[in-house]
Amino acid sequence: MHILMVNIHIKPECVDAFIEATRDNASASLDEPGVCRFDFVQQLEDRTRFMLIEAYRSEDAIAAHKETAHYNTWAELVKDMFAEPRTRGLYRNCYPDDPWW
Amino acid sequence: MHILMVNIHIKPECVDAFIEATRDNASASLDEPGVCRFDFVQQLEDRTRFMLIEAYRSEDAIAAHKETAHYNTWAELVKDMFAEPRTRGLYRNCYPDDPWW
Repeated sequence: MHILMVNIHIKPECVDAFIEATRDNASASLDEPGVCRFDFVQQLEDRTRFMLIEAYRSEDAIAAHKETAHYNTWAELVKDMFAEPRTRGLYRNCYPDDPWW
Repeated sequence: MHILMVNIHIKPECVDAFIEATRDNASASLDEPGVCRFDFVQQLEDRTRFMLIEAYRSEDAIAAHKETAHYNTWAELVKDMFAEPRTRGLYRNCYPDDPWW
């Protein structure tokens, strides 16, 4: 599994709009054949901080996601909402094994 | 859903032993009634960095996990493997909703 972990920090006044736009993107992303999971979580201690946990079946699936209409609509909608640039790390699964993602 | 995101940095010489011990703990944790997910991932760019994505049904389930034999065995096994103290954040799910975790 190819797992992209994305750290996101949003301007306080944009939190509700960011959640709405990102829920739509996450839901549409799960319909991509190469996407196993697209989890979107909000930190309780600081509600302006979020993470995406995006699990892809292949590296090609990561590239394909960036070409979708829903990704590009999301990127345009949220582009001025970030308090600082988002950061990403690419991970592999140690547990569970692929069939359970 | 109550989601604990844990950032972990391990000494290079301990990476293999840490993976083995943490796979065992993750597998046993999934048998706890309050645990929905216990994902364990390794960063590709720096193989000494890991994350745990622990999804619990309640705050009580987080406390119950700390009382289990498998957690305490793991904590003892790995206690000298950390390159720096691990950091944690508590999150809520924005997507998907609870039944899909």
